[in-house]
Amino acid sequence: MRMVDIIEKKVEGKALSDEEIRFFIEGYTKGTIPDYQASAWAMAVLFQGMTPKEIATLTDAMEHSGETIDLSAIAGIKVDKHSTGGVGDKTSLALGPLVAACGAKLAKMSGRGLGHTGGTLDKMESVPGTNVFLSPEQFIAQVNRIGIAIVGQTAEVDPADKKLYALRDVTGTVQSIPLIASSIMSKKLACGSNTILLDVKFGNGAFMKTIDDARELAKTMVRIGDDLGRDTRAILTDMNEPLGFAVGNALEVKEAIATLHGNGPRDFTELVTEAGAIMLLQAKIVKDLETGRKKIQTAIKDGSGFAKMCELFAAQGGDISYLQHPEKFPEAAYVSPILAERQGYVKSIDSLEIGLSAMRLGAGRATMRDKIDMSAGIVLKRKVGDFVEKGQPLAYAYTNKADHEEVLAQIRAAFALDDKEVKVGPVVHEMIAL
Amino acid sequence: MRMVDIIEKKVEGKALSDEEIRFFIEGYTKGTIPDYQASAWAMAVLFQGMTPKEIATLTDAMEHSGETIDLSAIAGIKVDKHSTGGVGDKTSLALGPLVAACGAKLAKMSGRGLGHTGGTLDKMESVPGTNVFLSPEQFIAQVNRIGIAIVGQTAEVDPADKKLYALRDVTGTVQSIPLIASSIMSKKLACGSNTILLDVKFGNGAFMKTIDDARELAKTMVRIGDDLGRDTRAILTDMNEPLGFAVGNALEVKEAIATLHGNGPRDFTELVTEAGAIMLLQAKIVKDLETGRKKIQTAIKDGSGFAKMCELFAAQGGDISYLQHPEKFPEAAYVSPILAERQGYVKSIDSLEIGLSAMRLGAGRATMRDKIDMSAGIVLKRKVGDFVEKGQPLAYAYTNKADHEEVLAQIRAAFALDDKEVKVGPVVHEMIAL
Repeated sequence: MRMVDIIEKKVEGKALSDEEIRFFIEGYTKGTIPDYQASAWAMAVLFQGMTPKEIATLTDAMEHSGETIDLSAIAGIKVDKHSTGGVGDKTSLALGPLVAACGAKLAKMSGRGLGHTGGTLDKMESVPGTNVFLSPEQFIAQVNRIGIAIVGQTAEVDPADKKLYALRDVTGTVQSIPLIASSIMSKKLACGSNTILLDVKFGNGAFMKTIDDARELAKTMVRIGDDLGRDTRAILTDMNEPLGFAVGNALEVKEAIATLHGNGPRDFTELVTEAGAIMLLQAKIVKDLETGRKKIQTAIKDGSGFAKMCELFAAQGGDISYLQHPEKFPEAAYVSPILAERQGYVKSIDSLEIGLSAMRLGAGRATMRDKIDMSAGIVLKRKVGDFVEKGQPLAYAYTNKADHEEVLAQIRAAFALDDKEVKVGPVVHEMIAL
Repeated sequence: MRMVDIIEKKVEGKALSDEEIRFFIEGYTKGTIPDYQASAWAMAVLFQGMTPKEIATLTDAMEHSGETIDLSAIAGIKVDKHSTGGVGDKTSLALGPLVAACGAKLAKMSGRGLGHTGGTLDKMESVPGTNVFLSPEQFIAQVNRIGIAIVGQTAEVDPADKKLYALRDVTGTVQSIPLIASSIMSKKLACGSNTILLDVKFGNGAFMKTIDDARELAKTMVRIGDDLGRDTRAILTDMNEPLGFAVGNALEVKEAIATLHGNGPRDFTELVTEAGAIMLLQAKIVKDLETGRKKIQTAIKDGSGFAKMCELFAAQGGDISYLQHPEKFPEAAYVSPILAERQGYVKSIDSLEIGLSAMRLGAGRATMRDKIDMSAGIVLKRKVGDFVEKGQPLAYAYTNKADHEEVLAQIRAAFALDDKEVKVGPVVHEMIAL
């Protein structure tokens, strides 16, 4: 078998056989197929697409290109969730403890932030002492004991995706739904849970700009999961403004705590409730979504969600006095208001700009070697639909960098104001299941 | 400027600017842009195409990626021709001496054969003593003295094309007309002649399978030449059977000699006459094609074409007693007939299969390191339109390999016979000029 023939077959728009797809992924992972053939192949896929069968085979081949996580030693149904990446997305920090408090098992592998999106591991580490690297034995034991663990990857999971993802990033082949879907799903499948809930974001701050693209990606991923024997569902959520008010590591942890106390932002609370209900359904803890929603709401009201969050951090070495007394988190040296220059209703907030501005204030990384300032970030004072008077604050910037005037202007520019009242929609638009 | 942005722009179907194209070619030639970005770019071009302006800029950038040949020391209009590669294509060996005998200046750089197509340099070397590597000074002096030289490249001409061509070959990006056209034209332009005649072949033995594809390629190349200030024309010629009867190095030289004596195959003589007439027109030696044809025919009849062939080989050290007494060429140890298994009219002859069979008999190279057997090859006894009785020869195989039974069967399979009479068309179908 020759890689050039496989590329040419895809150029002609034909479906590749299982053998051809596995030949490519195995050869590319080993290095016998060079980058220049892989990038040509990815570009041909970008233009010609792949059939559901091809996508399932590609995902399966990538999943098995390295180690896979065996969670069979954990009793019961293991649930997992994945977000395609948003701004202010602290979902795992609140949702994880809530579903665990309701009896689900969440053995979660998370990542770090890069560019305008944050990462759960970084947010967890803003609580002093928290260790996100557990041995496989510690990881499994913790989930069996308290129902939840959130850690970074130690095993060589999905090396094919690591290579292909880095290559796609520099060869203009990122925007291919079959390649995005197989990249996400191969990693999730390799992490071994029984069910997967995908939070597919759309809008100015998301990878998918429109709900139609988000729906296509969601359907493709749900289909892959189904083809490969996992209960997979997806929600399409709005990222035309940041999620909640807080963007930045410690700021988001504080917002997650507030949410578990019942004082969270409307949109974030809605997302956590909807996603939690679906995960409880997938875990067969509830029989319908409405019961699931009620259970999540109860776990907020009776404090069991917050208690589980404390258990989670305590189990991983975190100083939970910070969770109990969030005022202990160090505050940034500068807290600068961004004031409205005119009155009006907030029509949209460019999440991408907010994410990039938070990064520039110190909250994120431009490259993987950069260090994060846990106290830096942005707290919105107005969300879409809110009215603001001229001179009132739109947001506050938190930073330890004295020179941040330019960033303030960028944050202000992210707000679009209108004279007309603006209708506010839900954050969760659709659920996708087979 | 970042290469990934240039790739993404092409993915979106937009035309690249001059700066972007030159940035790519310069960076790729220097090695600062890696193969994996070049192959992704080439694949995007395969799907999205390029505008005439982009193609002209690309060609110009490639032409100037290395040394260019300065022919200004040669008096008069320098003509050149290029064939897209055929089987049995000994055109330069007969056409070159004919146009030079008529007063045109041909300073030609040729190549070697690979795979199913032969190369002019190999054919020339079948005449003992012939040297195809002259210094630039010797090359120019010879053209000034006798009107013709045919040599291999010594200068680093068009290194961008060398890299890109090798890359395209293994990444499924060969079949892009903008890339084929710029590859051919950048090399021809770098070789410095004032006029270019392109022989674009179509049919089973050619790179372009249909006349429509050949026309598109020809028009693209003529347009490039015109945009870059050279008189460029093209002919579309039929390669649904090999050109002439002979395929193989010494065998083709003998056929070129016979043609210059007026005893050439009908199709080859037609091609040489038509192409010669156009080149004389481009050289401003004649005012119309009909006068050009007559001049070529006269150069055959009066022996001046053959005399020029002898001058050419003598000037480059060849033993012209072989040209004067072609029976001196060593004959292959085995001359095996391929007999018809049924009677019928020859409907087509698969030139690709004939070319590959000749290679297997020893006449060509599978890789650039293989050695050529100058005496090996195939001589057709029937061409398209001819009638053959069962048991009569279709062709003869010439080889020094005892074990060639399988090749004989492959040659036989290349002939398609039909009960109905077959109409024979011209070899030159169209002329393309702006």
